[in-house]
Amino acid sequence: MRFAPDAFFDAALTALKDEGNYRRFADLERRCGAFPRAHHEGGQGDREVTVWCSNDYLGMGQHPAVLAAMRDALDTAGAGAGGTRNISGTTHAHVALEAELAELHGKAAALLFTSGYVANWSALGTLGARIPGLVILSDALNHASMIEGIRHSGAEKRIWAHNDLSDLERQLSALPDETPKLIAFESVYSMDGDIAPIAEICDLAERYGAMTYLDEVHAVGLYGARGGGVAEREGLMDRLTIIEGTLGKAFGVMGGYIAASAPLIDFVRSFASGFIFTTALPPAVAAGALASVCHLKTSTAEREAHAVRVATVRAGLDRLGIPHVDNPSHIVPVMVGDPLKCRYISDLLMAHHGIYIQPINYPTVPKGTERLRITPSPVHSETDVAALLDALGALWEQCQLARLPRAAQ
Amino acid sequence: MRFAPDAFFDAALTALKDEGNYRRFADLERRCGAFPRAHHEGGQGDREVTVWCSNDYLGMGQHPAVLAAMRDALDTAGAGAGGTRNISGTTHAHVALEAELAELHGKAAALLFTSGYVANWSALGTLGARIPGLVILSDALNHASMIEGIRHSGAEKRIWAHNDLSDLERQLSALPDETPKLIAFESVYSMDGDIAPIAEICDLAERYGAMTYLDEVHAVGLYGARGGGVAEREGLMDRLTIIEGTLGKAFGVMGGYIAASAPLIDFVRSFASGFIFTTALPPAVAAGALASVCHLKTSTAEREAHAVRVATVRAGLDRLGIPHVDNPSHIVPVMVGDPLKCRYISDLLMAHHGIYIQPINYPTVPKGTERLRITPSPVHSETDVAALLDALGALWEQCQLARLPRAAQ
Ligand SMILES: Cc1ncc(COP(=O)(O)O)c(C=O)c1O
Ligand SMILES: Cc1ncc(COP(=O)(O)O)c(C=O)c1O
Repeated sequence: MRFAPDAFFDAALTALKDEGNYRRFADLERRCGAFPRAHHEGGQGDREVTVWCSNDYLGMGQHPAVLAAMRDALDTAGAGAGGTRNISGTTHAHVALEAELAELHGKAAALLFTSGYVANWSALGTLGARIPGLVILSDALNHASMIEGIRHSGAEKRIWAHNDLSDLERQLSALPDETPKLIAFESVYSMDGDIAPIAEICDLAERYGAMTYLDEVHAVGLYGARGGGVAEREGLMDRLTIIEGTLGKAFGVMGGYIAASAPLIDFVRSFASGFIFTTALPPAVAAGALASVCHLKTSTAEREAHAVRVATVRAGLDRLGIPHVDNPSHIVPVMVGDPLKCRYISDLLMAHHGIYIQPINYPTVPKGTERLRITPSPVHSETDVAALLDALGALWEQCQLARLPRAAQ
Repeated sequence: MRFAPDAFFDAALTALKDEGNYRRFADLERRCGAFPRAHHEGGQGDREVTVWCSNDYLGMGQHPAVLAAMRDALDTAGAGAGGTRNISGTTHAHVALEAELAELHGKAAALLFTSGYVANWSALGTLGARIPGLVILSDALNHASMIEGIRHSGAEKRIWAHNDLSDLERQLSALPDETPKLIAFESVYSMDGDIAPIAEICDLAERYGAMTYLDEVHAVGLYGARGGGVAEREGLMDRLTIIEGTLGKAFGVMGGYIAASAPLIDFVRSFASGFIFTTALPPAVAAGALASVCHLKTSTAEREAHAVRVATVRAGLDRLGIPHVDNPSHIVPVMVGDPLKCRYISDLLMAHHGIYIQPINYPTVPKGTERLRITPSPVHSETDVAALLDALGALWEQCQLARLPRAAQ
């Protein structure tokens, strides 16, 4: 019997549906200037909803300075870059953005990629493949893009228990001194919102002669006096070999990058397939990201309002006794633990309350840890917060969901 | 001795420089509305140059319909998508663009990626990893993004000689009938400009029960009555399992996609790491690409002018006796065969003639086949063509480069 492609694909999709892990994308139209409001194209036509799960954490995607820079670049440079970075695709905006990002992280140089995913995949893939004998020590909860890059590199990989310094040290100390080593980890873990012990990891790296690779995707723009991330806040940027970030979350646009020493950046620039063989970011995207990075270097109002909003949502959930993961970041995961129940709550929030929180399921999180991941932002008003808490409170009542002892009101 | 990262990187870069393969990016500022004119930031400050190596083949990057759609989307939806496709990042523009691309290629469905590179890498990587026993038969000159995707998938790979049907058949016939097979190839090969025998490859695929994966990155927008690519021109779209394209070359913006059956698309959508775990394209990018695809579905003026311009450049080179690869596409490679000489000619063109043609060297092409890759477009005027030919004629004289017997003038 010959292979029958569509029957094979259909069977795999049916299995996914049976597990409750089949994904339906909500069809949205963000309302620029009115975000977190968006229009949702559902079964019953177009409705206005409030988005509570965006990674445009600070609302920079509608910031006037960002939009003005993008409009200007569209007018002067046009739509696309028209080529790879090497073949006619490098513009002033790309060069200026790389300089700005290097400066943000206190590094000699930076390199742009089309996304944070491609940055992780390409940088780790290239270092792992090209440094003979490199061993990559990877945190167990690293993002898919890091995992794929490390796997693709063919380098030897040792997984250390999540944020576990003694496990990391045990594994480092087992390697010969002369073996090149790279510790790969994240600052803010996106689904649990916990934060790595960066200083202690740097201590170990120095003790055992390892390079460090820190993904600050969920921290850049958000932490540190100038938005340089958790490593900036903790005064650790100069101790890290490579800092990686995205321009698509708190910075509100799109793209990814690494910042490091000049030789390292030039090396990745020269050898990374995922950097070399692809059309450069549109000049308008680079210009918008540049404006966003520059704005958040000096303005702290967004970060301050963000922290207040996060605290308000957390306190409200506590008051209602709705269990959420206690973590030191801006990410508020409300655990549900079942994919069908998670989807059901999300559907009810959308249908009855005009609130959009995408259910987070496998493979984004491990099975059994399905959750609603709430991302408060400075553009959510007090009224938005009250509406969210009312809706969640009512649903928890209605659905007989697990509740902590209710705090005194 | 411990590993010393920067010394290692420096040594690798020195080796690259010694070979003549170190890359310097030209820092450009495209002039929207005046493209192929751009400003070049070189040693002597800002100068106006004419770009002859862009992959914005039709000048769609400055088309009013594309720019208007992008401006509108910026105004209504803001800068970035703010999330992955699953988590708040899907907008009307993404949904509409996928429908338009499916229709363009006569397929039931299409799926957007952040780039053509990511489309190839993710789609081939996912199919190869998830279809048990799949053997991928890959053309020897496939693009880096396909090679990396296939390698990453871990599937068995068989390389067949470039565009060689008998080698492909030999390898297909050696595989058991029940083995799932996928033939991966391109229509227009980007560096030589030759075109695959698509119909004959489809014949073989049908005879031996193989799926087909066709990269039309350098053909979409350019060939076929509605810009569906070489497969559209030759009436072959329905015989291909998967058609892959980019929105960053002839369509002038950014992004990549595959078009195929609904179950296949849903399968890749559900399982591809490079699709799932990354911020979606900005709504404005999707809207611009949508406008471009729609425009080129009905307007043939750009394609006709493009063909005329390509023919004029080729005829001019023939008249001057400057050797260029004879191929049936729009890509005009002038072979130089040495990286230093190629860079030197490119530098002289820029410095003395205000003409920008990036030297193409390893790893983009094999060592010893370094070339100038000229891409004429409808936005190059007759005067631009004359200036290009004058400059190349003068340089060939000056540099004593190989010349064919000069045709009668
Ligand atoms: C930790 C982490 N790293 C990298 C990425 C990829 O960044 P981007 O969305 O810019 O591709 C993500 C999310 O998308 C992430 O959560
Ligand atoms: C044949 C081929 N496929 C895929 C790509 C990648 O497309 P994109 O530039 O959209 O990443 C390219 C060039 O960049 C290419 O030449």
